[in-house]
Amino acid sequence: MKIALAQLNYHIGNFEANESKIIANLKKAKAENVDLIVFAELAICGYPPRDFLIVEDFIQICIASVERIAKECVGLAAIIRAPSLNPDVKGKRLHNTAYFLNDGKIISTHHKQLLPTYDVFDENRYFESGSTFKCIDFKGEKIALTICEDLWNIEGQSLYKKSPMDLLIQEKPDVMINIAASPFSIHQTENRTKVLKWNTDQYQLPIFYVNHVGAQTELIFDGGSCVMNKEGEKIAQLPLFEEYFSIFDTTQLKHETIASIPSKFEKIEAALVLGIKDYFKKLNFKTATLGLSGGIDSALTLALVVKALGKDNVLPILMPSQFSSDHSISDSLALCQNLGCDHHIIEIEKLYESFDQQLAPLFEGTDFGIAEENIQSRIRGTLLMAHTNKFGSILLNTSNKSELAVGYGTLYGDMAGGLSVIGDVYKTEVFELCRFINRNKEIIPDNIITKPPSAELRPDQKDSDSLPDYEVLDAILFEYIENSLSPADIIEKGFDEATVKRILRMVNMNEYKRHQTPPILRISSKAFGMGRRMPIVGKYLS
Amino acid sequence: MKIALAQLNYHIGNFEANESKIIANLKKAKAENVDLIVFAELAICGYPPRDFLIVEDFIQICIASVERIAKECVGLAAIIRAPSLNPDVKGKRLHNTAYFLNDGKIISTHHKQLLPTYDVFDENRYFESGSTFKCIDFKGEKIALTICEDLWNIEGQSLYKKSPMDLLIQEKPDVMINIAASPFSIHQTENRTKVLKWNTDQYQLPIFYVNHVGAQTELIFDGGSCVMNKEGEKIAQLPLFEEYFSIFDTTQLKHETIASIPSKFEKIEAALVLGIKDYFKKLNFKTATLGLSGGIDSALTLALVVKALGKDNVLPILMPSQFSSDHSISDSLALCQNLGCDHHIIEIEKLYESFDQQLAPLFEGTDFGIAEENIQSRIRGTLLMAHTNKFGSILLNTSNKSELAVGYGTLYGDMAGGLSVIGDVYKTEVFELCRFINRNKEIIPDNIITKPPSAELRPDQKDSDSLPDYEVLDAILFEYIENSLSPADIIEKGFDEATVKRILRMVNMNEYKRHQTPPILRISSKAFGMGRRMPIVGKYLS
Repeated sequence: MKIALAQLNYHIGNFEANESKIIANLKKAKAENVDLIVFAELAICGYPPRDFLIVEDFIQICIASVERIAKECVGLAAIIRAPSLNPDVKGKRLHNTAYFLNDGKIISTHHKQLLPTYDVFDENRYFESGSTFKCIDFKGEKIALTICEDLWNIEGQSLYKKSPMDLLIQEKPDVMINIAASPFSIHQTENRTKVLKWNTDQYQLPIFYVNHVGAQTELIFDGGSCVMNKEGEKIAQLPLFEEYFSIFDTTQLKHETIASIPSKFEKIEAALVLGIKDYFKKLNFKTATLGLSGGIDSALTLALVVKALGKDNVLPILMPSQFSSDHSISDSLALCQNLGCDHHIIEIEKLYESFDQQLAPLFEGTDFGIAEENIQSRIRGTLLMAHTNKFGSILLNTSNKSELAVGYGTLYGDMAGGLSVIGDVYKTEVFELCRFINRNKEIIPDNIITKPPSAELRPDQKDSDSLPDYEVLDAILFEYIENSLSPADIIEKGFDEATVKRILRMVNMNEYKRHQTPPILRISSKAFGMGRRMPIVGKYLS
Repeated sequence: MKIALAQLNYHIGNFEANESKIIANLKKAKAENVDLIVFAELAICGYPPRDFLIVEDFIQICIASVERIAKECVGLAAIIRAPSLNPDVKGKRLHNTAYFLNDGKIISTHHKQLLPTYDVFDENRYFESGSTFKCIDFKGEKIALTICEDLWNIEGQSLYKKSPMDLLIQEKPDVMINIAASPFSIHQTENRTKVLKWNTDQYQLPIFYVNHVGAQTELIFDGGSCVMNKEGEKIAQLPLFEEYFSIFDTTQLKHETIASIPSKFEKIEAALVLGIKDYFKKLNFKTATLGLSGGIDSALTLALVVKALGKDNVLPILMPSQFSSDHSISDSLALCQNLGCDHHIIEIEKLYESFDQQLAPLFEGTDFGIAEENIQSRIRGTLLMAHTNKFGSILLNTSNKSELAVGYGTLYGDMAGGLSVIGDVYKTEVFELCRFINRNKEIIPDNIITKPPSAELRPDQKDSDSLPDYEVLDAILFEYIENSLSPADIIEKGFDEATVKRILRMVNMNEYKRHQTPPILRISSKAFGMGRRMPIVGKYLS
């Protein structure tokens, strides 16, 4: 059987665009005499559709689209996924379904059994688990078809009590196909390979794996579809972060080109660039606005957005105050020059003075403090938003994960924006990513990378005045956020007790700020946002 | 058996406070010779603890607390709920467990089977379903103990395939006990009564029902614990929205005092007041800041916050501009006088001019528009936040549900704040609630209620310039948001096609704004926030 893997970028709820793309790929496959084309998870409606799944109309549109696509499947079979209605009156209203299409109609449906409901996944919110499983007989071969998580109940990971493959294997299939919507995180490529290999070892079958590519708000799908033979060797690897179409012969599996798996910072850079690009494209925006402070976070964000949207589609705005150092302007200008982009400067001192005057009666007798620092930051937020409103752009937020964690930022000020580009990148990783970007030539001026970080909201302020060294801070944050360790366990790893307690308290006290941050492009196994849900009034460790 | 129902207000993660409160109630029960005291769902750690449940330490603290409380249960038994560790290596790590405590120890554990995973509930994210069920034998009676949702698999509602009561009934119990954390929404009291009655009818047993009271960020638990005899008559009803302790004799069930169920707007008012009160108390804040525009939304919010925190704990700030009408100031002053609270006035015209000047080079040749309107709103946001930062208060947001739905508000401007008080109240309900508050005397000046709503961001602006009448708007929004109807179905109900399409498009296009709103006190069956999860880049209907 000739099988095509279609690794495509869909758009949630954009049925017209998704359907056209699917049909174009069907035609391409037909032209190449393919027997079966396989699309990724929820190709019809995009993934994750979230609560659109509650709207009856949305489901009906999905089903109608599957039926239209089925009509195109003459002389070529397809596997495609969409929600379907659960015919049982008891249980959730929907199944998460793979449709096998052939002879111009829907031949069979295959419901996902293992419904991920953790981190960024909410599938049990919408779907009833499938409970019956049948292989697909096609062209003399028997296909064991599963959906994403269905293959993830492997040894050492124990979220589920059953595995659909344990039932399917009884029919003695020839090949496994798994269609997925598995979002990127730093170690996810390796995790996936491990899971697929566990399955080939366990069931002694080759596997064809097709993943979604493209970003949907905070989730970045990296593709990385692949084929493994029954010995668990990867015989083909589709590239990461781009659309791809590849054909294989199941009866003559041989080693094909293996796209190289990029290094950690290559992956992070590619993921963030795709995240920006798709956010703008899918919201139908072309241009970005960004505040350039002279610090490393906004410098990195600008470098990424220039790569994503092009130098002519972003306006960095410098907004120095009386507390800004000279180098914050000169460094920013050097950066703009390196990137070839325009810039604009607005001094904020007079605006600050106006606020100072208007607030004088109310603030009489008080000292300069946090309130005054935040006013400067909010003036900048207001100027930047004014620019986006005037010219129809999106403000990019430049907060990093370390400062978001401890609440070192101003709501409606530097925390403003339509998309947080590096909000899942720890400060120590920000430095590394800048050095990676500079590996061939200096794009981000070296002085931006080497000078001590400062918010420059009062004279001679340094981040280190109120925070421990970023190496220490990030290590503590990682143990708490990514690994969910207790304070005692973190202290046992050799960190200072008072520092650990202070940091965790800051993390928990600042849930209210993170509640109002823009969506954050997710690159880690635990990003702030939809995958980490905390009560604001929680008292634990705060 | 003498049974005490303890309807208490817990605080998420505040183990010390929760445990003291539980032990104080144990002592009270002992003094009254009670045999069994029953606490609400997840009393130990507060509900919902959300992703704190992922932190191992948090679970260990819960279990240690249960063990300490068990030691106090000598001469008195207790039913209390906390998470427990699932001993099975397969499946989710936790159970949602009711502990039966007696003789100074844990006698038995009873795991919740039906785990709500819809709307604001995420229980399948954390918990494995219980699968074995056993009644509690105590004082010659057999108790069928279930947890909240376990009783909700009633006819006509079909989310689940099984019911624990169907197994428990086989042991021929004498009484049902259900411990709950069921949040308030307008029709929830009636829904609960219906569900409880369905169960008494089905199983022919009396029921003791204990619910959580108190607000946890957006969720408001209204209590309303009650007792029904086996004929399905409510023989006792504990009051709504307050802590309460009540004792019954299971062998002599007779009609007790029935607290009256408040009317719709009495309930909404009480819920919002409790929501404000608990948000401040649980975050350890005393005072609020609020922008008073002269419009009905901020007037209503102020009336509610004065009721919740007291007139001396809120500072309303008036921030008129050149576009403000005279009555917006005089009406606001009249309101402050009626409520007996202080106020402060800051003119924003000069601030606006400063922005205008600083932005002039960038905005050259453009006309006054949305950008300029939003600058005014963000100046106000900045002033209000400066006040909260200076004096340690929380800014209350005054947006209503209708404007949040269609995006008629300015991010970081009037959409700013730590808590949205009326963000789940449609504009038409805002009018009704104000009239309800004024039922005995004029608190909110009549002119505020009767004048045409306006954002006053440009000359002679009215809401009706860009939105349909609120009666029409709210009706369309309700059908889409609360009832998930399709555009076609809404049009079929008699609404104008173009209006429906325009409104639904506005709703879907403004997910990015709602992503950054403060937590919204929930009073409806579908509030913006944790119970409604939408993809920002979704294209459906936009």
